[in-house]
This record gives sequence, C-alpha cells and structure tokens, in this order.
Amino acid sequence: MEELREYQAILEERINKLNFPEQPENLYDPLRYFLKLGGKRTRPTLTMLGCSLFGVPGIKAINAALAVELFHNFTLIHDDIMDEAPLRRGKETVHEKWNTNIGILSGDVLFVEAYDHLSHHESDVLPKLLKIFSRTAKEVCEGQQMDMDFEGLDEVSIDEYIEMIRLKTSVLLGAALEMGATVAKANEKETQAIYDFGVNIGLAFQMQDDLLDLYADPDKFGKQVGGDILAKKKTYLLLKAQELATPDQLESLDRAMNQLEGDERINKVKTIFDEIGIKSHAEKVKNTYYKKALSNIDSINVPEENKSALLGLAKFLMERDH
Amino acid sequence: MEELREYQAILEERINKLNFPEQPENLYDPLRYFLKLGGKRTRPTLTMLGCSLFGVPGIKAINAALAVELFHNFTLIHDDIMDEAPLRRGKETVHEKWNTNIGILSGDVLFVEAYDHLSHHESDVLPKLLKIFSRTAKEVCEGQQMDMDFEGLDEVSIDEYIEMIRLKTSVLLGAALEMGATVAKANEKETQAIYDFGVNIGLAFQMQDDLLDLYADPDKFGKQVGGDILAKKKTYLLLKAQELATPDQLESLDRAMNQLEGDERINKVKTIFDEIGIKSHAEKVKNTYYKKALSNIDSINVPEENKSALLGLAKFLMERDH
Repeated sequence: MEELREYQAILEERINKLNFPEQPENLYDPLRYFLKLGGKRTRPTLTMLGCSLFGVPGIKAINAALAVELFHNFTLIHDDIMDEAPLRRGKETVHEKWNTNIGILSGDVLFVEAYDHLSHHESDVLPKLLKIFSRTAKEVCEGQQMDMDFEGLDEVSIDEYIEMIRLKTSVLLGAALEMGATVAKANEKETQAIYDFGVNIGLAFQMQDDLLDLYADPDKFGKQVGGDILAKKKTYLLLKAQELATPDQLESLDRAMNQLEGDERINKVKTIFDEIGIKSHAEKVKNTYYKKALSNIDSINVPEENKSALLGLAKFLMERDH
Repeated sequence: MEELREYQAILEERINKLNFPEQPENLYDPLRYFLKLGGKRTRPTLTMLGCSLFGVPGIKAINAALAVELFHNFTLIHDDIMDEAPLRRGKETVHEKWNTNIGILSGDVLFVEAYDHLSHHESDVLPKLLKIFSRTAKEVCEGQQMDMDFEGLDEVSIDEYIEMIRLKTSVLLGAALEMGATVAKANEKETQAIYDFGVNIGLAFQMQDDLLDLYADPDKFGKQVGGDILAKKKTYLLLKAQELATPDQLESLDRAMNQLEGDERINKVKTIFDEIGIKSHAEKVKNTYYKKALSNIDSINVPEENKSALLGLAKFLMERDH
C-alpha cells in the first residue's frame, strides 16, 4: 500500500497548490473552500494507479487525475444544489454558505478547470483522454437526471436502478482508471478490462453504500443510520424488498414508509427487510460485482506486483464501515 | 455578404441536426428546445469567418464554431436561472418551462457537448483551441460573477463596468475569431489582431446594447424601451451620468431611480441623461471601440476581399436597431 499512500500524498499536495485567481472572490473562494473539505481522493488515485498498473509511473497521469477530481467536485457542488443538501462532509455546502447562483457559477468554472488540466496532456494521448472524459461527464449527468426522475416515479425496476448508479457513480471510477491506462498507452483490450474493473468496483461500492446506510455500526458510521428510509430513497434494498415481498409484506412496507415516522419507520422497515432477507441479497449482488471486477483485473497481463495497490484499494473500498 | 449567409445557413443546418440522445428526456429535451429558439448565430459565424479570413475555407472550423455556439447557449441557460429570467427570445426559459434543477443539469451537459465538438479538431491545432476555449470560458464566468456582484454594490466605476462587459460578452467574440484563425494556422501576431478586433467589436456592441435599451425605436425594438432603468441596471449610461452629474443632477437622478416608478422614472432619468449629454458620450465610446476594431483588422496582411464579410458583419452589428 506504499504506492497508494504516496499517490494520495502527491494528490493532496497538488490539490492544495491549485492556484485559482484572487478575483472575483465570490467565484473562486467557494472553490478554495470546497476543495479543502477533503475526501479520500479515491478517483484521482485510481487514475494514477491505472497508469502505474501498466508500468508507467503514475505521476505521468497527474493532470488527468486532477481533472477527474475537479470534475467530481464540480458534480458535488451542483448535486448539492439540486438535492438541497445543507452539509457536505459535515461542513456547509457552497450554495448554503454563499448562495445558489454562486454555487451554479463556481461549479461551472470548476468544470472548466477540470478540462483545462486534462488539456495539459501531450497531443498523442489528448484526443483519447478528451473522448473518455466527455463521454463520462455526459453519463454522470444522465445518471443524476435519472436519480432525480426516480423521485417522482411510483415504480422503478432493479435494472433501472442499476443503470442509474452505473451512470451516476460507477462509470467515473471506470473512466478514472481508463484515463490512467490511456496515458500509459495500454492496448485496447486491457484498457477496456481496467475500465470494466472500475465500473464493477463502483457498482459493488454503491451496494455497500446502500447496505451501510441501514446496517452500519452507528458509532462508526458518522451519519444517521436509516437515513435513506427516512428520505424515502429508492435504494437497492427497498426496490428488491418491493420485488420479493408477499402481498402482505408489501402492504406493511408501504404503510411503514408512508404512515410511520423516524425510528419507528426505520425499525419496522428493517424488520420487513429481515423477513425477506434483503441484507444477504444485497451482499450477494455486491460480491458478484466484486468478483467480476477481480476477474477483469485478472485478465490483464502485467506482473502481479503491479496490481497489488489497486487490489488493496478495491478491498479497502469493499470493507469500509463508514 | 454571400459568404456570411452561406455560413449562417450551414450553421443553422448543423445545429438542427445535432443528435442528442433520446433519454433521459428531461436532460436532453431542454437542449433540443433551447437550441431551436434561434438567434443570429453571430459567434459561430465569426469562427468560420476568422478561418476564411486567412484563406482557409470556414467549414474547416465548423466544430470549433459549434463549440462556441453550444457554449454560448449553455451560458444563457445558466444565466437565465441566475437572473430569474422568465423569457428568452419571447419563449419560456428552460428553468421556467421545466425547473431549476433541470436548467442546471441540462446546461452542464450542453457544456460537455461544447467541449466534445471542439475535441473533433485534429491534434495539430487541438491544444491551442482548448487553451483559448478554457481561458475564455473562465473569463465569461468571471464576467457573470462581476455582473452579479455589481447588483449589491453602491459604487461601480466606468473602468470596472468596461472590464465586466469585456469578460462577460466581448472576449467570446474575440475568442470565436481567434479559434477560426487558429484552425487556419494564422501567425501569432495576426491571430492576436483578429482577437482584438473581436473584443473591440464586442465592447462597441455592448455600448450599442446599452444605447438601444433607452433610445431604440419602440416599434422596432421588440422589448420594453427603458428596461434597464426599470431594473436599476448599472449600465454605461447610468454610471457615466453619475460620474458627470452636478450635485443637483445627481440628487434628481437618485430620486428618480428610487422614488419614481414605470414611465415616470424612465422619462425623468432620460431628461437628466439628455441634460448631461449621455447619449453622445456613449456613442463616442462605441465609435472609439469600433475604430480600434477597424484598425486591428487593417493590420492583418490578407487580400482585402477576404475581410469584406467580416467588415460587413461588424457594420451590421454596429447599426442594428433591435
């Protein structure tokens, strides 16, 4: 895990040194603020690891990595507006600390910064990087739109849910790795394999997210356990429960979701989930994606030691408890 | 003007043929809608003319031209949210017809489409095009932020106002031309000259905009004459009047702006403007920028016939009455 920590340290330093203009301060102060809220820098680390996997030092992919991280932060700033989220990592969101207009505009300029960093790459890989980046950016917007659309729908199928999380969160992990592999000039087949690895890890990661929301240890989780149930969010757990429930269970579930509040709702829903065995269903799906990811990386013909940091990070993401 | 009309027709056709995905329809329908609201396609036409000026067919710059037009529309969708504008070209704005979240997100995806079109250019010019495009996109955001900041300020100097309109509207006209010149591989000095031409035309254009708001023929204008005064907008006319007014005139102006409403306010402010001679001041500034622009293009060493479409368009922009 030495390589992992080294890359994270480099990224943290480079993000701290990003040099935004002083003026207009209402445009750039929000960026200085938001990028210091931290985070694990998972996505840009993946870009560097996707490069070093193929024997090229990860630092060669630093600008693509920064582009990925800046893009991710841009989406968070705009998503927080759309979700009316007051807090991000326990601190005020941009639109809350400043206002919605400043959130929109500082997000926009951050998106430009992302492309600007990507453009620093040499022209032998630049067109490919741009193609991956723009394709993925569109998909992330599509996923966010699907997520918003789901709120107003009575019925969402499991397939639609998986497609939504694939677009909203997983493709960016895949693309982060793919961009690293592109900088390293990996061949087409192996570039595809590392992309698929990232997407499958992303899907497993989101399953873990849905699971943690209800089954996390409250002392470690740091957020309200059962928050998705309180927010009536259509997660895998809820959608699968609705699919598998007997008519009686379905009626109880609907009643709990719509007539109970607070802990009462959470406890009742959890009881029904337990009857149906939802937790093990979700864990099975999570493990299926994780195994697919492992078989994707297994197909890549590089020394096993090149894979260890990436496999370590994947394992860490699968086992996280908060 | 044959060339001008030819390029406008090509652009209109290409814009009509833009192939956005069908789904999610709440993401892409707003783009189909907004891009059909029309407009003169001035900016992308400039890109094609900036290319043909240097003897290379304008069609070579079509993707840069489309990138400029898509970027411009993205800024309009987001600006309309920030300005709470209900109408654009007499039709409902995106956030009004759908909602604010859809306005934010469909704007974002349109911005990706802009970069995506730009990326179709060959890698011998692509890095330069990206640099111009990203630099300009940041400046446009900065100009919009300054404009929003001005609303809350008691005092704005003429210099600050000029800087704001330079960033918010003029640099994009300059960059549109610069990108065309870049595709044509014009030399550095002449690329700079055509950029300066565009910026100066842009500044003159904005002066014309400020002038038309109050002095246009109401039958031709199609908008409320005096709208800027009703909205208490800090235009060149108002800022210059505040600078040149005697203490008595300044008091009358403040009173008119803050205590009168509707036509009464417009008429009183116009009377004070006339006393101070604001219209001729603004016309002088407009003509100064126009003359600078003409001297910029004069410095470019290409056959005079190559310049005629561009000069025709500039003259048209200067003389427009609505």
